[in-house]
Formats: sequence, C-alpha cells, structure tokens
Amino acid sequence: MEQIPGAADIIRVRKIIEPYIRRTPVHTSSAVDSICGCQLFFKCEQFQKVGAFKFRGATHAVMTLNERDARKGVATHSSGNHAQALALAARNRGIEAHIVMPQTAPKIKVEAVAAYGGKITFCQPTLPDREATLLKVRAKTGAVEIHPYNDYRIIAGQASAAAELYEDEPGLDCLVAPVGGGGLLSGSILSSKFFSGKTKVYGAEPEQANDAWKSFRQKKLIPVEKALTIADGLRTSLGCRTFPIIAEGAADILCVEEAAIIRAMMLIWERMKLIVEPSAAVALAAVLEHRDLFAGKRTGIILSGGNVDLMNLPWMDPQHFGKH
Amino acid sequence: MEQIPGAADIIRVRKIIEPYIRRTPVHTSSAVDSICGCQLFFKCEQFQKVGAFKFRGATHAVMTLNERDARKGVATHSSGNHAQALALAARNRGIEAHIVMPQTAPKIKVEAVAAYGGKITFCQPTLPDREATLLKVRAKTGAVEIHPYNDYRIIAGQASAAAELYEDEPGLDCLVAPVGGGGLLSGSILSSKFFSGKTKVYGAEPEQANDAWKSFRQKKLIPVEKALTIADGLRTSLGCRTFPIIAEGAADILCVEEAAIIRAMMLIWERMKLIVEPSAAVALAAVLEHRDLFAGKRTGIILSGGNVDLMNLPWMDPQHFGKH
Repeated sequence: MEQIPGAADIIRVRKIIEPYIRRTPVHTSSAVDSICGCQLFFKCEQFQKVGAFKFRGATHAVMTLNERDARKGVATHSSGNHAQALALAARNRGIEAHIVMPQTAPKIKVEAVAAYGGKITFCQPTLPDREATLLKVRAKTGAVEIHPYNDYRIIAGQASAAAELYEDEPGLDCLVAPVGGGGLLSGSILSSKFFSGKTKVYGAEPEQANDAWKSFRQKKLIPVEKALTIADGLRTSLGCRTFPIIAEGAADILCVEEAAIIRAMMLIWERMKLIVEPSAAVALAAVLEHRDLFAGKRTGIILSGGNVDLMNLPWMDPQHFGKH
Repeated sequence: MEQIPGAADIIRVRKIIEPYIRRTPVHTSSAVDSICGCQLFFKCEQFQKVGAFKFRGATHAVMTLNERDARKGVATHSSGNHAQALALAARNRGIEAHIVMPQTAPKIKVEAVAAYGGKITFCQPTLPDREATLLKVRAKTGAVEIHPYNDYRIIAGQASAAAELYEDEPGLDCLVAPVGGGGLLSGSILSSKFFSGKTKVYGAEPEQANDAWKSFRQKKLIPVEKALTIADGLRTSLGCRTFPIIAEGAADILCVEEAAIIRAMMLIWERMKLIVEPSAAVALAAVLEHRDLFAGKRTGIILSGGNVDLMNLPWMDPQHFGKH
C-alpha cells in the first residue's frame, strides 16, 4: 500500500482482517453522559485481541505480506501493544515475529509478547538504540519491518475501528481518538471522511507529549523531545505518513494534563466497569476538559486498549497526584 | 408471588423488568478457556444498572407493588448491591427507598445508594441490629420491606439473568453462579429447569462463608456464624425460600479459598479487561479449583457484579495473600 488508503481500500482491509479480529462492542453510560453533558459512545478496543486496537493494523500488515517476505518473519521495535499485536498476528500466519523492546517496558507487556510466541531482544529505552537494535535483528534474520504506525497498511487497519463504530452508531457529531504516533487518529479520520462525512474528528493528547498539538498548529512535523506522560502508548511522535492525514482532516488536537487522565481513567473503571489503560482514558479526559466543544453532541470515543499492570495502578502512586 | 415461580412467571417477569434493565452481554476469552480447560461464557452483570444483577429482582419487586403499598415507599437492610438496586428501582417508580446499612459498608456503596436517592439509616454490622433498625424505620414510615433474596419476587427477577444467557448460548452443559443468600443461584436453577433442562447448575461459595455447602450436604438450613470472606456479597446465609430450590436443583455447591478468589479476580481483570468484584470472581475460582468437573464442557458463569473500591483492591493488601 503505497499511498493514502481510500474508501475501497478500507472496505477491502476490513474483509481481510475480519476472520482474525474481534468486532468490539460499543458501550454507553448514562452516569458518564450526565457528568460530561453529552451523549458518548465508547468503542471498546480493550476487548480487541491482545487488548488493544493495534491488532487490527498488525493483522492487516502480516496477512498481506507476500509468501517470500512472510517466510523470513516480521520485526518491530515497540514498548507495548504493537509488539503483542505483531506477535499474535505472526503466530496466526505461522511465521516468526522479532520484537525489540526497551528494558523499561512494563513487565505485563513483555510477558504477553512472550506468551504470543514473539522473540524478544531488549535494548536501551532510547529511539537511536531501538532503531540500531532492530537493524541488527533484521540483518541477522532478514525479517520485514512492520512499523507501529507510519505505514499505510497499519493506518488502513486501524481505520476499521471507526468504520465499525459508524456502522453501529450512524450520524455521530464528533469522534475523539487518542494520538501518539497517529496511526489510530489518521485511520479514524479516513473512515470518518469516507463513511461518516459530517463527523468532526478530534485527537486527544497528553500535554506531556504534545507533539501532535504543536505539529498541527505549526503545520509541520515537530517531534516530541521528552514524553513523561503516564499514557505510555502516546509517548511517540507523529510520522511522515500519519501527520499529513491529521493536518488535513483533524478538527483539532486537544491536550490534557496527567491528573485529568487519571481522573478520566478512574471514571471509566468505576462507572462503566471497563478496564482501560491510561492512553485510552486520554480521549475521555479531553471531552471532560473541553466540554463546551461537545455539549449536547453525540460523540464517539475510541477506548484504545486495556493493558495495565494491576500491581502498579496510577492512583496508587501519590506522585501522580502530587505533580498537579 | 406466594409460591416458587414457574416458567410462565419468569417469562412474565422478564417482560415487566425489560424496560428498566440492561440486556447484559456475554463475553468469552480463549486465553481463560485454555487456562481452565473448558469453554466459558461469562454473563456480564457488572454491566447491569447499578453494577450488579440485584437490580433485576429489585426492579421486579418494586414495579409490581400495588399503588397503596408503593406510596409508602420500600425499605431494606443491605450491605451493598441490593441497597443500590432498590434505591434506583424506587426512583424509577417515583417512590422512596429507605436503606439500613451497616457502618462498615464500603464507602463506594454508601455513596452510590445516596446518589440513587436512597434514604440511608446506619446501624451496627450485626444481623440483630440490622433487623431492629429496619423495624424502627418501617414503623416510622410504613415502608414495605423488600428482602434482598428470601422473596419469590426477587428470585424470579434474578432468574432472568440465566434465562437471557440460555437464549444467547443454548445448550450449555453447566452453569456456575455465586451463592450468598441464594437469590441468584435459586433463580438460575429455576431458569435452567424451565429453559435449559440439561444444564447442571453449581453454586460457588467462599470456604469462609460455607453455609450453603453445609446446608446442601446436611439437607437442612445451617446459617453461617462468622463470614470473614473478601467476597462481601456472599457473607449472608441461605433463606427459607432459596434453600429448598437449591437443595432440590443444584448439582453441587463448590467451595473456594480466599487466595483462589483473588487469583480468579485478577485473571478476569487482566485477561478479559472486565472489572468484577470478589463475589463475582468466586464462580470462576470454583471452575479453576474443580476443573475435572468442567473439563471440555460448555460452561456458563454469572459474573454477578463489579462494585469495587479502586483505592482498596485485594491484591494491594498483603494480608490476603499472607493467610494462605
């Protein structure tokens, strides 16, 4: 897939991945609606296989590899959900997945990658070392790199989440998706354009990793320097393929503080009985912190994933509240 | 409702409560299936209104009161989910709910009752004081008592959960429901008898509150003396209306230790991304601890509720693990 996916591409991709993915449910909560002052529809990607939307894109990329490439396996560097997603997608196709992970990745995510049969190589938690280690692994194995987001195959796969949501809930006024590398947001923008033309799409981003916010405003790619957010899935920066789609199609990028992310996460856990990771809570935090934008609107929210370490929840750590 | 509900009663009750309750989804997990060695279907009552199945029975009891009784309001003593359920059901009918709660009830449950408009009177955490306080409240208000479980209207309401499950997943080999006072288990037994004749129904009970296990074996009601289980919804004993249904219809009562309850709870949280309270995890714990009984079987599990205090989760408390 060499150019920005079109409507027909996304429809085709949905058929390709359908046998492997879960059609995730849409949850609602009158309690959360009345707190937010709007009508919210939560697309529950924490119930997706591997516990995150990332399995959609990874499955598409792996299942459409040609036979010769597939035989050498796939490889990526990822601190989390993309790693699990690629490992399971590869296992579903019967090929190897080589995963480069920073030593600082949450234990629960490392164990999950191993459980899906991924072959893990650890590296330093810096982008240069991640890339260097990945190059070494690829040189040794010949594996094909599957980038977590800066790849049209991935973007088209992630687009399927919003496309499903629009089938279940037609005519949404707004959609809010978290933005890290931008795979989910750019895919959501494409599905909105093709399948729900009047829906405004917002990206939701931690202030501590606000590269999308900066890039969107200055109309050029400005990578994040140091992302200290609790939303570990959103520490990455936009790529050259995700940024142009977002620059053209997003209604806005909305930033939220760390304490607001934790509050939104607790609200989803307590009132909706849904386990979501901090990155997934960023979208609801954006609605809560910018409620004028959404007042009275039918608004979709993509809950991006639910992989958390139960032994280390943010509200157990006074540091997170102390900062604000 | 003066006698054990029949098939026609349960069908009628379902129509009465349908406008008020949620039709809760059934979740599955291939990861949990392979750990347990059987095929599990989880009926998700944590997504029921008020976060627990109790809303089914309370709604039925409140909505079928005659106009004269209803005007005086309803009353109960409850440490938790029945209190919330009765408060919301009463609000839905536009009448008052008087709730007697022990001072030791979890804060999150007290706040929820208040949020649903329930009028709370606190008492000592002993059965005699709960009953005495309730009598005083009823003497003052004339409110009708709605017992949490020992009432055929309640039993018929709780029966609707299993009836829905059998519609969604016909032909289950087994069903496991937690047992405290026995409202959910006796209702599940009735629905199984009428709508899924070949399904064996098991009660799952904490060893620390094993009155149902004792009563079932000795064929007479033996109330629990001191129930120190973490599964706070299951500390009560069977009643004169629930026990005979269970004695006749249960395949067995299965007991589990506290550590097994916590392990099962973490498994549901981590692998299924579902928030369930300890009482709900008891049913999965029973499957894990008695796996020979369920090997290869299509087994339904009723996840009874999801009301937990996120600031006070069992795995954060070393005492719970230290005991075993």
